[in-house]
Amino acid sequence: MAKGYVHRRTKLSQVTQDVVATAMGREPADLIIKNGRLVNVNTARVQDGVDIAVRHGLIVLVGNAGHIPVTASTKVVDAAGRYVLPGFIDTHDHVESAMVDVRNFAAAVLPHGTTTIACDNHELTNVFGLKAVRLFHDAAEGLPLKVLVAMPVCVPSIPGFEDAGATITAADVTTAYSEGWAALQGEQMNFPGLIYGDPAVHAITRASLEAGQVLTGHYASLALDEGLNAFVAAGITGDHEGTTPEGAMRRAQLGCYVQQRYGSAWLDMPNLIRAVTENPGLDTRFFTLVTDDVSSATLVTSGHLDRVVRKAIRQGVSPIQVVQMVTLNAAQLLERSREIGTVSPGRAADMLIVSDLVAMTIDQVYCDGVLVAEDGELVVDITPYDYPTWAVESLHLDPLTAADFVVPAVGNAPVKVRVMRAVPGRVHTEEVIVEVTPVDGALRADPARDLMKVAIFYRHAPVEAGATDPAKGTRTVGFVTGLQFDPAVAIASTVSHDCHNLLVLGSDDDAMVAAANAVIGINGGMAVVVGGKVVAELPLPLGGLMALDSAAVVAKRVEAIEAGLKAAGCPYDSAEMTISLLGLIVIEELHLSNRGLVALKPGQPPAFVDLIVEG
Amino acid sequence: MAKGYVHRRTKLSQVTQDVVATAMGREPADLIIKNGRLVNVNTARVQDGVDIAVRHGLIVLVGNAGHIPVTASTKVVDAAGRYVLPGFIDTHDHVESAMVDVRNFAAAVLPHGTTTIACDNHELTNVFGLKAVRLFHDAAEGLPLKVLVAMPVCVPSIPGFEDAGATITAADVTTAYSEGWAALQGEQMNFPGLIYGDPAVHAITRASLEAGQVLTGHYASLALDEGLNAFVAAGITGDHEGTTPEGAMRRAQLGCYVQQRYGSAWLDMPNLIRAVTENPGLDTRFFTLVTDDVSSATLVTSGHLDRVVRKAIRQGVSPIQVVQMVTLNAAQLLERSREIGTVSPGRAADMLIVSDLVAMTIDQVYCDGVLVAEDGELVVDITPYDYPTWAVESLHLDPLTAADFVVPAVGNAPVKVRVMRAVPGRVHTEEVIVEVTPVDGALRADPARDLMKVAIFYRHAPVEAGATDPAKGTRTVGFVTGLQFDPAVAIASTVSHDCHNLLVLGSDDDAMVAAANAVIGINGGMAVVVGGKVVAELPLPLGGLMALDSAAVVAKRVEAIEAGLKAAGCPYDSAEMTISLLGLIVIEELHLSNRGLVALKPGQPPAFVDLIVEG
Repeated sequence: MAKGYVHRRTKLSQVTQDVVATAMGREPADLIIKNGRLVNVNTARVQDGVDIAVRHGLIVLVGNAGHIPVTASTKVVDAAGRYVLPGFIDTHDHVESAMVDVRNFAAAVLPHGTTTIACDNHELTNVFGLKAVRLFHDAAEGLPLKVLVAMPVCVPSIPGFEDAGATITAADVTTAYSEGWAALQGEQMNFPGLIYGDPAVHAITRASLEAGQVLTGHYASLALDEGLNAFVAAGITGDHEGTTPEGAMRRAQLGCYVQQRYGSAWLDMPNLIRAVTENPGLDTRFFTLVTDDVSSATLVTSGHLDRVVRKAIRQGVSPIQVVQMVTLNAAQLLERSREIGTVSPGRAADMLIVSDLVAMTIDQVYCDGVLVAEDGELVVDITPYDYPTWAVESLHLDPLTAADFVVPAVGNAPVKVRVMRAVPGRVHTEEVIVEVTPVDGALRADPARDLMKVAIFYRHAPVEAGATDPAKGTRTVGFVTGLQFDPAVAIASTVSHDCHNLLVLGSDDDAMVAAANAVIGINGGMAVVVGGKVVAELPLPLGGLMALDSAAVVAKRVEAIEAGLKAAGCPYDSAEMTISLLGLIVIEELHLSNRGLVALKPGQPPAFVDLIVEG
Repeated sequence: MAKGYVHRRTKLSQVTQDVVATAMGREPADLIIKNGRLVNVNTARVQDGVDIAVRHGLIVLVGNAGHIPVTASTKVVDAAGRYVLPGFIDTHDHVESAMVDVRNFAAAVLPHGTTTIACDNHELTNVFGLKAVRLFHDAAEGLPLKVLVAMPVCVPSIPGFEDAGATITAADVTTAYSEGWAALQGEQMNFPGLIYGDPAVHAITRASLEAGQVLTGHYASLALDEGLNAFVAAGITGDHEGTTPEGAMRRAQLGCYVQQRYGSAWLDMPNLIRAVTENPGLDTRFFTLVTDDVSSATLVTSGHLDRVVRKAIRQGVSPIQVVQMVTLNAAQLLERSREIGTVSPGRAADMLIVSDLVAMTIDQVYCDGVLVAEDGELVVDITPYDYPTWAVESLHLDPLTAADFVVPAVGNAPVKVRVMRAVPGRVHTEEVIVEVTPVDGALRADPARDLMKVAIFYRHAPVEAGATDPAKGTRTVGFVTGLQFDPAVAIASTVSHDCHNLLVLGSDDDAMVAAANAVIGINGGMAVVVGGKVVAELPLPLGGLMALDSAAVVAKRVEAIEAGLKAAGCPYDSAEMTISLLGLIVIEELHLSNRGLVALKPGQPPAFVDLIVEG
C-alpha cells in the first residue's frame, strides 16, 4: 500500500490529444481491462467480451483494445468474464451520520464500490457556517472518492428559536458555488418555507438557480398534489423524502428524481421501489438510490450503496435497472453524465469488477483508473487531513457544575411540568404533563418515575473571532421520559440535531456534570456515566460531530456507548440516536433548544412554551 | 393575429414566489389546460384526466388544478381528453437548408410542433464568420421558437484548399459562448482531424469543453471501433451521421446520443431505428430524432419533426418512446431537461395538444404558455428582422463577361481533361478523363457529349472592412459531366457548399455569363438560363443563402428553378442540390474550389490536381 496516497484527476479538455492517440492505438494505454462483461447502463444490456482502455484516468475505448500498444507502464487486468460496472454514485449522503470525517468516510465506502458522493454537510455547517463547506471541500482534496459538496441551505433550521454556530444566507450560497466549494444545493428541508413563500428560502433558491446548480429537496409530506407540485416547480431536481410507492411514482411523474432512501435507520426504499416492481415497463430513469444517513456500524458490517443495490435487487428489480439507479440515473440527476456514471469513452474510469451481480460481490474498485480497493479492502493509503484548531476545538464551554442543572421552583407545592416523551426508534416526541414536587426549592429528576432531566447548553463561538455573541451562556433545562435510566446515570453529547449544542440527559445532576465535563474534556463527542462514573467515551473532535478515526474504530466506540446506555438501564437499541433528536425543534411535538422549550403542534407554527404549566 | 408579436420569456429564478403561489392556489394561473391525456415522457406512461397550470410561461402544476383561482385574465383550455405532449426539440438542424431566414423558419416549423431547435448555422458562418453567429442569435430574439445556436467549428472545411468568407478559430468559439451567442458546439465535421490529432481541431474542442458546452459530432464513417471510440472519447455528446442499425447501437452503447436523421434528402432514421425495433427492452434514452437538412418544400408539404415522429411510429416503435426521442431525450442531450422536454413543474410551458397520437395530429402548439399555432396555422405574427446591409449584400463581384469563363489551351491537339462526374442523388463525384479538342485555343463545353463547364468565383469580402484580401479575384474553371444540359443553358448559384462562392455551370459561356450576372443582380441566390434567357430566379439575399420570404414562397421559387433545370434538359429531380455540392472538397473524389481542382481519394489527403492530365 502506497503511503500517503494523493489522487490526481485530469480534465478531459486538457488531454484530448492523448485520449484520441490511445483510442486509435497510436500511443499506449495506462490501464486495459480485458474481457469484461460490461453492464452497459446506456442501453440496459450486458455486453460480453469487452475491453476498456484508460488514459489519464479517463476511459478512451470500450470495445476491442487489441490494437492499443501495451508498454511496461501499462497495467493489464484480465476481467476473465467478470462484470464491469460504473462506480456507484450516492446523490444524497450526510457524512456526519457515520461520525467520521470525509477521509475516513472515503476509506470506508470505496471498498463497497461507491466512487462519488454528493455530501450535504448540514451538521458541520450548523457548527461552523460557510467555513464548514470550504473545510469539507478542502479535506476531500486528493481523495480517490469524488466528493461533491451539497450546499447546506437550512442553517439554522428555524431562525429565532435556537442558536446554531452560524446562519447560512443566500450570499453564502452564492459564495460557495462561485468559489467552487459546493457543487449542488443540499436538501431544502424548509419545504413549508418554500411552498408558502418565505423570502429567505426563496432568496437561497434563486441563488442556486442563478448559479445553474442542481437543487435537492426534502419534501417530508404525504401531500402529493399542490404541495409537491409547488416544491418541484420552484426548481427542486430530486427528493429523498418519499415514503410510499405513490410518493415515488408521483415524484417521477413530475420529473423530480426519486432518491430512494435506504440508510441505517430510514429504510424507505423497499416500499418506494414497489412503484417500479408493480408497474412493469415503467421508464425508471428518474429513480435513484441514496443512503442519506449511515452509521459507521452499518458501513463496517453491511456496506454502503452495495448494500442498497443488493436490497433493491431482492425486491425484484432487474440488476441492470438497479445498477442504472446508482450510476447513470444518479449522474443525470447531478447533470454530470458526461463525466461519471457510465463506462463510456470520455468519462472518468470509475469502475467496479464484480464477480456476482446479484450478490454484488465487488472484487475491485477503480477510481479514475486507479485500483483503490480489492476484495473489500482499501489498497491505497488515505492519510489524515490536518484540520485547523478551530475545527477540532469547537466546544466553547467551561466545565459545568451541579448549579448549571438546577431547575428552581417557587415553593414546595407540586407543579405540572411539560415533559418530552421520547419514543425510541421514532423521530418525533410527545408532550406529556407530569406532576413534580419540588425538593429544596428545585425540580429534580426522578428515575423511579422515568423522569429525567435534559439540558442544552449553547456551545458555539462567533464565526468572526472576537465578535460579541449574544447567545453565549444560554442554556435550557427540561424533562424527558421514556428512556428508563437508572439512578446516577447520564449521557452528554454534542451530536444534537440540528444546532449541535451540548445536550446532557440524566437521572442525577452530578452524573450529568460528570458526563458533560467528560465531553468538554475530549473537545466534543459523547460520554456515558453509570453509577456516577464515565463508562464510555466517543471523542468527536471535528466540530463535536466527527471522529478522526476509522469507521471501524468509531463503530466499536459507538457500540461501547450503546452498551453503556444499556448498562444505564435504557432497554432500547441505539438510544443515543433518539436522544440526539431531543433538540430537533423542526419535528413535532415538544423539544428543547438553548433558548427554551419549543412546541410544534400539527398545522401550527413553532412556539416557545413554559416548562411549568400555569394553573 | 397580433401584429408584430414579440415573445418574452421569464427565468424561473426570478419568479419562484409566483410559481409556488399559483401551484398552491393562492394566486391565479395565466393558463390552465384541463382534462388532458398527458404523454408523460418521464415515466413513459399516459396519464388521463390531467390539468396543467401555467404562470409566467412556466408549468407550475401537473395534476388537478381545481384549487387554482381563475380570473378574467386566466386562459382556460379544455383539452377534452386529447393528448398533451411536450413541444418537440430538434438537436441538429441547419436552418439554411430551407433557404429561409430563422424567423421564416420559425414560422414554418412552429405549426408542426417544433418548439426548440439547436441550429448549426455552418453555411452562413462560412460567409460571415463569427458575425454570422451573433446575427443568427440576434435575429432569433423575440421568437416563440427557442433557438439554440450551435457554434459552427469547421470553417473553412479544409484550410489551404479554398477560401470561405472567414475562418473560425478556438478564440472565436470561446467568444461565441461567453457572449451568449452560441449555446452548444455545432457538428465537428472534421472527424479525421479530431481522431488523428489536428491541433486546430483540438484547440476548438478544448474551448468547447472548457466552456462546459455540449459538443455535437459528424462521424461520417462506418468504422465503429477505434475511430468512433476516439471521437466520443474526445467529448462528443451526440452524432447524427450513423447510417446503419449497428452504427446507431454502437453510438448508444458508447454513451453518444444517436441523432437519427430524417431530413429532405438524407433519410437514415428508418434504418437506424431498427436498433430499437429489433432489440425489445433496450433503454432508448440515448436515441433522438433530428432533421439536419430540410427544404422549404418538405416543410410546406410534409412538416418538420412531426413528419419524423410519424415515420418513426410507422417503423414500429411505441408512440411514447418516439415522443421521448424528440422531447426528454433531446433535452437530456442538450443538458436542458430542467427547462424543456417534459410537461413537468418548473419547465417551460412548451406543449402540444394532439388529437391523434399515431397520426400526430397537432391541434395546438404552446410556447412558454402562449398559443402560437392552431390546426397547422400560425396564430402569432412573426415580423421580419431588419438585417444589416453587410448581411444582405454579400456578393462582392462585378458583372462577369465571357472572358471570365475561357479555359485556354496550348495548340489544337486533343488533350486529356480531368472531369467531375456528378452522380445525381449522391454527395460524392467520380473523376473521369475525357479527351477534348481545343477550338480557337480554348477548351469548350460540349453538350453533345454531356460535357459542361463549371466555374467557381471567390465572392466574399474580408470580415474587417478595408483589409486586403488575397483571395480577391480568384476563380477556377473546370468541367463536369452527368447533368445532360442542352445547348445554351446554365445555372448560377451562391449556394455552393461549403464556402458558398459563386458557382456557375453551363453548356455555353454566354449562358453562364447571363446566369452569373442574374445572380449578381439579385445579391445572391440562383438563376437558370435556358435558350440564352433567364427562366427562373431564386433571390437569397441573406448571405447569398437565405430568402427573407416565407417557406411557401421559397418552395415555389425552388420549384421554378427545378422546372428550369428540367427545361434545360437535366432529367433529374432536385439537380440544383447535386450541383451545389460540386464545390464540396471534403467529399470524394474530384471537386472544384476557387483555388483549383481538388482531388480527394480514399485514404489520401486532399491534393490540388491539374485540369489537363500530363502526357
